[in-house]
Amino acid sequence: MTPLKAPYLLFIGDAKDPLSIKMARSAADWSPEKCIGELRLPGCTVTTGCPALTIAEAKAAGAQSLVLGFANSGGYIDEAWLPVIHEAIAAGMDIISGLHDRLQDIPELVRAAQARGCELFDIRHPRQRLRTGKGYRREGKRLLTVGTDCSVGKMYTSLAITRELQRRQRNVSFRATGQSGILVAGDGVAVDCVIADFIAGAIEDLAPANAPEHWDIIEGQGSLSHPAFAGVSLGLLHGSQPDALVVCHALGRSSMRAIDNRPLPSLEETIALNEMLARVTNPQAKVIAIAVNTSAVDEEGAMTYCRDVEQRLGLPCVDPIRHGVARIADKLEV
Amino acid sequence: MTPLKAPYLLFIGDAKDPLSIKMARSAADWSPEKCIGELRLPGCTVTTGCPALTIAEAKAAGAQSLVLGFANSGGYIDEAWLPVIHEAIAAGMDIISGLHDRLQDIPELVRAAQARGCELFDIRHPRQRLRTGKGYRREGKRLLTVGTDCSVGKMYTSLAITRELQRRQRNVSFRATGQSGILVAGDGVAVDCVIADFIAGAIEDLAPANAPEHWDIIEGQGSLSHPAFAGVSLGLLHGSQPDALVVCHALGRSSMRAIDNRPLPSLEETIALNEMLARVTNPQAKVIAIAVNTSAVDEEGAMTYCRDVEQRLGLPCVDPIRHGVARIADKLEV
Repeated sequence: MTPLKAPYLLFIGDAKDPLSIKMARSAADWSPEKCIGELRLPGCTVTTGCPALTIAEAKAAGAQSLVLGFANSGGYIDEAWLPVIHEAIAAGMDIISGLHDRLQDIPELVRAAQARGCELFDIRHPRQRLRTGKGYRREGKRLLTVGTDCSVGKMYTSLAITRELQRRQRNVSFRATGQSGILVAGDGVAVDCVIADFIAGAIEDLAPANAPEHWDIIEGQGSLSHPAFAGVSLGLLHGSQPDALVVCHALGRSSMRAIDNRPLPSLEETIALNEMLARVTNPQAKVIAIAVNTSAVDEEGAMTYCRDVEQRLGLPCVDPIRHGVARIADKLEV
Repeated sequence: MTPLKAPYLLFIGDAKDPLSIKMARSAADWSPEKCIGELRLPGCTVTTGCPALTIAEAKAAGAQSLVLGFANSGGYIDEAWLPVIHEAIAAGMDIISGLHDRLQDIPELVRAAQARGCELFDIRHPRQRLRTGKGYRREGKRLLTVGTDCSVGKMYTSLAITRELQRRQRNVSFRATGQSGILVAGDGVAVDCVIADFIAGAIEDLAPANAPEHWDIIEGQGSLSHPAFAGVSLGLLHGSQPDALVVCHALGRSSMRAIDNRPLPSLEETIALNEMLARVTNPQAKVIAIAVNTSAVDEEGAMTYCRDVEQRLGLPCVDPIRHGVARIADKLEV
């Protein structure tokens, strides 16, 4: 898609739940240079940590886009936000929304944006023309994060690995597959929102042939073991044709996300399943490391857990937040 | 979705390729009682076998829907067909399209249909509200056809099994997952056209809890081994939570559909892969039979092939067209 234009003014409405502003926070955490400020409505009790700016102030400081960087239940566009959106359009800013409802479906916004020469980006809804996959081998190297479950740190891990490789001056790109990642990267495709026929093809286009030494670090989604989302995960796996897989996991979760009484698969199962299915498009696909969100235990518990996993599996195991991902990046140096 | 209204008048435009009218032919073959006639434009060289009727004649004979039962490259709605569609609407008929382009996107058709109280059905595009899957066990029994590849006879086999069980007065429903099947059944969901997040959930709704002895015979799509469509196939497998699987295969195919140099997986691999992944939502899932399109060989070649497969796998193996599916249905009697 057309790359999103930074700097962003992060609009977080009257949000009260820190989880509901995940998209805005991801941008503020991972692309602080793109985030010029935040705009809150009365009643808002959370923050991205960016300075509070009005639209006029943000515009004066160079802001190019207003980001609806929060979610409400149902993902609808609240009428209360329309004046803010109109003011941003009047100031000449693009509007970027990660909500399920589309800005493009609100004729008065479409008219206003056209009149002012601004763009409306509904980043959950792919606007590029999609095609079905082919599975043909392409040049360049690709790493995909996969999970024992949804929401186990795949985006965080992917971004951390990308940054570590950038720090080492490697030739690397982060490839975003969800709305938060898209906002950080400035482009990408929300793979869970594409038409089912195009899952693998969308990822082939997102992570195309590249220089032989170039790494695409592709953000994973869902889990092959999740009864709702495994189809997305499998199409993403096939489209990525990854050389390297990193299994992400969260400690202390008793059931898979949003499902009752469904224990998470073991790391061993997750490795075997992903490697086997990845080989449809890359016979050399290999899990090279484990990344664990250990926030449920203390420092020592985290160290013990990771050491046990390393001994059991013979693979590096780190918590990207507590330990960094240098040891994962090391595996990509060979 | 709202069930489609039969009888149908099958509009096949100026089609020249028998494959391009697969949807109309499926309806004529499998639901002849729903198909009152066909309507062709000058230059059309193929037929569904139904009598040629004008719209007025079809209406007088009771037709309730005009079906755009053919495909062109790109799936667009040709302007040349609009007069026919308008005439059918003026006669009070619903319009059913299996094309990629939507009737609903043509404002003059929407207005005409509203004025006349007719409905426009774009059956490739789900209109029901979809949700994500849960994977919770539900009552009733389900059979899913799966494949070594796309286009290997999954719809045909599913319909044949349904008919055989109906003949035996069993409690059975055919569940359509593609546009041809939907036209035959009168409802269903085109699973390759749903948003990726909803693949499994759409099938949970399509084949809901039922009486313990009731069988849903669910039409499969794609193949777990196909690099473009495996995500659809996996979501369909999980959403179906099948008790029984029938593996469909076509003899004499050298590469997977629309992909160069990709041999089909073996029956053994296909069985193992489907059974393993099906167990995410049904630990008892089991392949019970093999259905083969043997049209590439003669009668004797077909018998030899099926006998060899039976000996190798210990499962019934039939060509549904040449041998019928009684032996598959027998496996569902226990």
